[in-house]
Amino acid sequence: MNKIYVVGIGPGEYEQMTMRAANALNSCDTIIGYTVYVDLVKEHFAGKEFLTTPMTKEVDRCVLAFEEAKKGKNVAMICSGDAGVYGMSGLMLEIGSGYPEIEVEVIPGVTAATGGAAVLGAPLIHDFALISLSDLLTPWEKIEKRLILASEADFVICLYNPSSKKRHDYLQKACDLMMQAKAAETVCGIVMNIGREGETMQVMTLKELRDTKVDMFTTVFIGNSQTKEIDGKMVTPRGYRHG
Amino acid sequence: MNKIYVVGIGPGEYEQMTMRAANALNSCDTIIGYTVYVDLVKEHFAGKEFLTTPMTKEVDRCVLAFEEAKKGKNVAMICSGDAGVYGMSGLMLEIGSGYPEIEVEVIPGVTAATGGAAVLGAPLIHDFALISLSDLLTPWEKIEKRLILASEADFVICLYNPSSKKRHDYLQKACDLMMQAKAAETVCGIVMNIGREGETMQVMTLKELRDTKVDMFTTVFIGNSQTKEIDGKMVTPRGYRHG
Repeated sequence: MNKIYVVGIGPGEYEQMTMRAANALNSCDTIIGYTVYVDLVKEHFAGKEFLTTPMTKEVDRCVLAFEEAKKGKNVAMICSGDAGVYGMSGLMLEIGSGYPEIEVEVIPGVTAATGGAAVLGAPLIHDFALISLSDLLTPWEKIEKRLILASEADFVICLYNPSSKKRHDYLQKACDLMMQAKAAETVCGIVMNIGREGETMQVMTLKELRDTKVDMFTTVFIGNSQTKEIDGKMVTPRGYRHG
Repeated sequence: MNKIYVVGIGPGEYEQMTMRAANALNSCDTIIGYTVYVDLVKEHFAGKEFLTTPMTKEVDRCVLAFEEAKKGKNVAMICSGDAGVYGMSGLMLEIGSGYPEIEVEVIPGVTAATGGAAVLGAPLIHDFALISLSDLLTPWEKIEKRLILASEADFVICLYNPSSKKRHDYLQKACDLMMQAKAAETVCGIVMNIGREGETMQVMTLKELRDTKVDMFTTVFIGNSQTKEIDGKMVTPRGYRHG
């Protein structure tokens, strides 16, 4: 049976990939992905065939992977971070039901939430919610509801896709919603370019985050009521009783 | 400046560790951890000094790491999964503020949520909440509130520590709470022994999950309203508009 690997390559730098991911890519003939991710791994997998499609062409990319596998090639579809967190593994399994002769194996990787958390310190030690601010495929009202309820539940919150050209004020809106239940002084952090050139981080309050400009390569962390700043790092305690 | 690495070794098997984690462990003299995790990596790092402490002695384990580093040793503290998700990185940074001469570097890994998701298919493609059912350090009322609000917000929910000897009925209680807002037919999945010998998975409904016995090596996934079963796998779509 032909197999396609759907591989999370981690934050970006080669070293942050798992050995299992690297072994899978080494075993393949063809590596398929969004142009930016292919460029991140290309130099480490010489001699492979690389196929790319633009960012919005995810369905085409999946079909391409299955069609290449049908030809008898060993194929890997790569995603940055983890393939299963806002990644391609879901679409691959959905489209894959039309290709019963091809098996799909998902190989996990370090997603931006945990990769960014390591840069900031330890913001995700306790229960957290991951929310994407992109309303491309999700109604904004649903995102609003999640921001409010997750804040009321005192989750640490990690935001993906906090901004884009069309959505320059979404982080500000999100902060206003979270401040309905979280204190303005809640410890927050942002990480830019996790595991890539130009990696930087900053710890601040929720009130300050509201007025901070971020780009699409930024991951945003909002603490729970116990999160502290320790020596410039963002740290959430393990619990509430000894907090 | 002396440095301690706090390293997430991933789900268990050596291959699922990142290259960065393996390189850090190779560079160390001493590897410290909970007995079970040390046993998982021992054979791959011959010649290292291994120090272990029992499960409940986390503070002692951190102090031990700093005291060994003070002696001039290169030290790594290992955790299963990711060091920053219910892991040791927070406590290490808290205790580390008493050792300003020692730098702490956190190295992320594949946590059970993403490792287990890859085994089940793609349950975490959309916004999700991670909740531990352990009430050792968190009041049960807080956990209840999170289960209810995360369900009302239609998050995919991933449960860590779903059971223990003392808490054999907690998963049942949690399912009853989630069913206040999630349909009894919601697609759910469980994964046992992720990335270790005996790895198995099962897809079922929330109603069925309620009456399923799980152990402490199980990670539990509860879908959102859109999550489907496709060819025996658990798959959450990318959004709401295109179902």
